Amino acid sequence: MTEGGPPLHPAIAPLSYMLGTWRGQGEGGYPTINSFKYGEEISFSHSGKPVIAYSQKTWKLASGEPMHAESGYWRPKIDGSIEVVIAQSTGLVEVQKGTYDSGNKVVKLQSELVGNASKVKEVSRVFEMVNGELSYVVQMATNLTNLQPHLKALLRKI
Amino acid sequence: MTEGGPPLHPAIAPLSYMLGTWRGQGEGGYPTINSFKYGEEISFSHSGKPVIAYSQKTWKLASGEPMHAESGYWRPKIDGSIEVVIAQSTGLVEVQKGTYDSGNKVVKLQSELVGNASKVKEVSRVFEMVNGELSYVVQMATNLTNLQPHLKALLRKI
Repeated sequence: MTEGGPPLHPAIAPLSYMLGTWRGQGEGGYPTINSFKYGEEISFSHSGKPVIAYSQKTWKLASGEPMHAESGYWRPKIDGSIEVVIAQSTGLVEVQKGTYDSGNKVVKLQSELVGNASKVKEVSRVFEMVNGELSYVVQMATNLTNLQPHLKALLRKI
Repeated sequence: MTEGGPPLHPAIAPLSYMLGTWRGQGEGGYPTINSFKYGEEISFSHSGKPVIAYSQKTWKLASGEPMHAESGYWRPKIDGSIEVVIAQSTGLVEVQKGTYDSGNKVVKLQSELVGNASKVKEVSRVFEMVNGELSYVVQMATNLTNLQPHLKALLRKI
């Protein structure tokens, strides 16, 4: 997990199972768009501080052509709450607040702020370990559509 | 600049001089804190899309101990305007809007949004090439203090 790296800060120990690089496939959809599939890589790392650095990129499955990217920081607190800040390549920023359950390896996030977005009003993100794989579901609400599934993916640690 | 990498998107060509990794030293201060010096590395990269990925980290000069980190995306437009979104390890998000001057190699940014911050109200960032080195000045306004210099650094391409 932290082989040769800096010692783990106690605040991020409950989420240490996420550290590393994950790769897999995802599926996107929404009432207003055609559904699509994508390849994805997510990386979680740390420097010894009570913060996990997060970065992600996706690509078209057929061509490998890059699609989306985002990066930010996960800030878990020992009371089981967590805040996550994300900047997206599309120009959005998100402040996510939520909770983690280290026993069940579930993190639930709900946007407190979505900035610089013309249509997106709300984003929720749930990350969960399923049979040793990292799964997530992203839901989204826009000015025209209530909160509903937008993205889901399943990723294996590499 | 893009050796072996994907072809440069025309939209980011005016800022291609920034692509790569820069390392150097900076100096921080503010009316409410003791001034301090830091080591810093900044990386600008691209995937062929009209966006530049940005990441940065700083460390204490004496011990090498990690300090701050931030990451995000630079989105220049061909009309000379640019927006930059940043997530900070401290939990802040920034939406910066501004202009670039590719002839003089200057980028001027002013926050349109600072999110999830208890005290910081406003951030301006100016990046400039000075004798082949990348320099920046960050100014900050808080609930108690008007916009004034907070950070400056000078970095060499490595």
